[in-house]
Amino acid sequence: MEKNCSSETERKPIRCKAAICRSPGEPLVIEEVEVAPPEAWEVRIKILCTSLCHSDLTFWKLDMGPAAAFPRIFGHEAVGVVESVGEHVEELREGDTVLPVFQPDCGECRDCKSQKSNDCSKFPIAHYIGMPRDGTSRFKDSNGQPVHHFLFVSSFTEYTVVDVANVVKISSDIPVEKACLLSCGVSTGVGAAWKVAEVEEGSTVAIFGLGAVGLAVAEGARLRGASKIIGVDLNPAKFEIGKKFGVTDFVNPAACLEKSVSQVIKEMTDGGADYCFECIGLASLMQDAICSSRQGWGRTVILGVEMHGSPLSINPNEILRGKTVTGSIFGGVKAKSDIPFFVKKYLHKELNLDGFITHEIGFQEINKAFDLLLQGKSLRCIIWMDK
Amino acid sequence: MEKNCSSETERKPIRCKAAICRSPGEPLVIEEVEVAPPEAWEVRIKILCTSLCHSDLTFWKLDMGPAAAFPRIFGHEAVGVVESVGEHVEELREGDTVLPVFQPDCGECRDCKSQKSNDCSKFPIAHYIGMPRDGTSRFKDSNGQPVHHFLFVSSFTEYTVVDVANVVKISSDIPVEKACLLSCGVSTGVGAAWKVAEVEEGSTVAIFGLGAVGLAVAEGARLRGASKIIGVDLNPAKFEIGKKFGVTDFVNPAACLEKSVSQVIKEMTDGGADYCFECIGLASLMQDAICSSRQGWGRTVILGVEMHGSPLSINPNEILRGKTVTGSIFGGVKAKSDIPFFVKKYLHKELNLDGFITHEIGFQEINKAFDLLLQGKSLRCIIWMDK
Ligand SMILES: NC(=O)c1ccc[n+]([C@@H]2O[C@H](COP(=O)([O-])OP(=O)(O)OC[C@H]3O[C@@H](n4cnc5c(N)ncnc54)[C@H](O)[C@@H]3O)[C@@H](O)[C@H]2O)c1
Ligand SMILES: NC(=O)c1ccc[n+]([C@@H]2O[C@H](COP(=O)([O-])OP(=O)(O)OC[C@H]3O[C@@H](n4cnc5c(N)ncnc54)[C@H](O)[C@@H]3O)[C@@H](O)[C@H]2O)c1
Ligand SMILES: [Zn+2]
Ligand SMILES: [Zn+2]
Ligand SMILES: [Zn+2]
Ligand SMILES: [Zn+2]
Repeated sequence: MEKNCSSETERKPIRCKAAICRSPGEPLVIEEVEVAPPEAWEVRIKILCTSLCHSDLTFWKLDMGPAAAFPRIFGHEAVGVVESVGEHVEELREGDTVLPVFQPDCGECRDCKSQKSNDCSKFPIAHYIGMPRDGTSRFKDSNGQPVHHFLFVSSFTEYTVVDVANVVKISSDIPVEKACLLSCGVSTGVGAAWKVAEVEEGSTVAIFGLGAVGLAVAEGARLRGASKIIGVDLNPAKFEIGKKFGVTDFVNPAACLEKSVSQVIKEMTDGGADYCFECIGLASLMQDAICSSRQGWGRTVILGVEMHGSPLSINPNEILRGKTVTGSIFGGVKAKSDIPFFVKKYLHKELNLDGFITHEIGFQEINKAFDLLLQGKSLRCIIWMDK
Repeated sequence: MEKNCSSETERKPIRCKAAICRSPGEPLVIEEVEVAPPEAWEVRIKILCTSLCHSDLTFWKLDMGPAAAFPRIFGHEAVGVVESVGEHVEELREGDTVLPVFQPDCGECRDCKSQKSNDCSKFPIAHYIGMPRDGTSRFKDSNGQPVHHFLFVSSFTEYTVVDVANVVKISSDIPVEKACLLSCGVSTGVGAAWKVAEVEEGSTVAIFGLGAVGLAVAEGARLRGASKIIGVDLNPAKFEIGKKFGVTDFVNPAACLEKSVSQVIKEMTDGGADYCFECIGLASLMQDAICSSRQGWGRTVILGVEMHGSPLSINPNEILRGKTVTGSIFGGVKAKSDIPFFVKKYLHKELNLDGFITHEIGFQEINKAFDLLLQGKSLRCIIWMDK
């Protein structure tokens, strides 16, 4: 890695190490890459630490369609320091502690201006394989070939370039590895309970999938005063850890025998949970979640990214009886205003972040983070760039 | 028909005329029936006029499953006068002008007590073939055989018996044929726009199906200040009539050629309508409605009763991008409080009811009402019992 002195590196490419994925499902390989200087409205960030979210796994495995693009630098949960900024970047400067965030918050489009949406329409997805404004890459491998970005972030590299719409400045009071969690999964879960579902005091909640996202939903529901928080997971190891996040009851679908999960939940909640959340990414479980919600007012929030592209099949009569299904990218969180709010909640000891970190490793061992998440052994594994 | 003097008929069966359907899809036959006196918590009503809703057609055609029960007395949009009341009925008395309403409002269950639901859990559906409390019938045909009820109302008869939870007392200032409309279709549509979607001023609305329900949605959306109200219907005759209810734009799916309906609506609304309503009862159109709603905050409200029991298939990624799908029985209307509110809106000349009445006929001609609705020629056809 070259020196981290921005006066020296500014406006020049940086050569550094990145973990590149060359084909679907293959282990990442640490290679040298060249990271271009930031263009207008862009920021180059020195990553301090990063973590692995299930969405990385989903796209890492993907071997078909335009979103399956290789070679690619994955990673979208991270924290870093601004190394240099491109033209027109006013809100950030060298040395700022920042979170790169996959969901843009441009502040200008109808969505970013509305309180009802966080789904920026100025920079729509288009498979997230390049920069948001021009779709091109800022990475070249040692043969000079471009390497694809991931989700506008690409954090499995010592340096990355991110659009200013995808960067949030945060207080340097919060330990960086805790801040890192707010870059995707935990914000998504807490936001979904807080902003999307608006969980009410005394209500019942059922959460399908107790990964970091699902447990963050539990944490958000606990903060909002839910009285019963049911966790559903195939992995019984998640039940102990769930208790730390306010999960009060557990259902293991494999142990339900002749009853369906939704029957069991209906019995536990006098007719169905007020709020259900799908945090796995399987259409069949989205259906179970909807079935488990209460007629009359039950709301189901979809957070999982469907792994196989399967459609969600609903009985229209369930919807007709007053059920609601909704979903959100990034838990309805508007990055630039809500993440600083979550940081404050953490600093005031209201929001539990510490429990999400189950492992910490060095960048060289990055493939271990994949194994741990695939095997259901970790919630979040912090990958330190300088170790 | 026997005399309508309740002191004479009270606590005795009444013999009168009813239009009985003996098998699915067959014309109704006017026969003599015996209507039992009301039991505890029941009210016997002399029907003044009734109208035909598409839900009657759906169940009239149904030839399979437990909800296909014959012989049956259809009809659930009506207005009448209380002839006598059973034990424990305190809120109503002989001579009151009332609407029978298929959706109970018992005032006691969790749903009726909550502001979030109108889906009474004390009297759940169970195919609606008998009385809500005991499932039995109050009708016997001339051979002494029981005749099934429909939707807790059965209004195609001179006298019917309805649970007190399904009866709303209304002001006698409103002409009875206008009040009749509020008994189902119009309340459903206005309620869906007003209470379920909470349409906002300046917003865009797309309505699939311009029957009485769809046009009532338009009327509700107009009252809430929507700026663009797009009507979608295969029947171009609905377009002229739609203008009277605030519909500003029309889309005929048959004339869309290479574009899909949702593409056309997205172009008309800068990315998708803020609110979409399905008022037909076809899963494929529910899907179109969801596709036509805006990413980020678009809400789709399902009102149609799926005619073929087909599932609704949704792309989970659409939901993930902030769309919401919900539905409601009776447009979220709580019969006992909201119907008197709608009556007031009509008396204050804010709510347009007159335009919904396209035909008026006598009870003997009731099968004509079926033909008119099947052929798409009527919105609501008022059937007068004494003509
Ligand atoms: N909407 C968003 O913006 C957003 C943001 C982050 C993550 N996500 C998605 O949320 C989901 C969860 O992410 P995560 O990082 O918490 O994942 P994770 O792998 O940590 O957790 C998934 C959990 O689901 C459980 N599970 C798997 N299959 C199951 C089944 N059939 N029945 C019951 N439980 C089952 C696993 O045991 C695990 O505990 C993923 O689909 C991810 O792509 C969405
Ligand atoms: N949710 C509730 O509580 C509730 C209450 C009343 C009625 N409903 C349901 O609402 C729906 C509408 O009832 P209504 O009485 O207004 O019916 P209607 O027959 O008067 O109107 C239906 C309209 O849909 C149009 N249509 C039919 N097929 C179409 C297609 N493929 N594409 C476009 N347009 C099409 C018809 O031309 C007609 O104008 C029915 O499904 C009914 O059962 C539900
Ligand atoms: Zn993520
Ligand atoms: Zn934006
Ligand atoms: Zn009806
Ligand atoms: Zn009730």
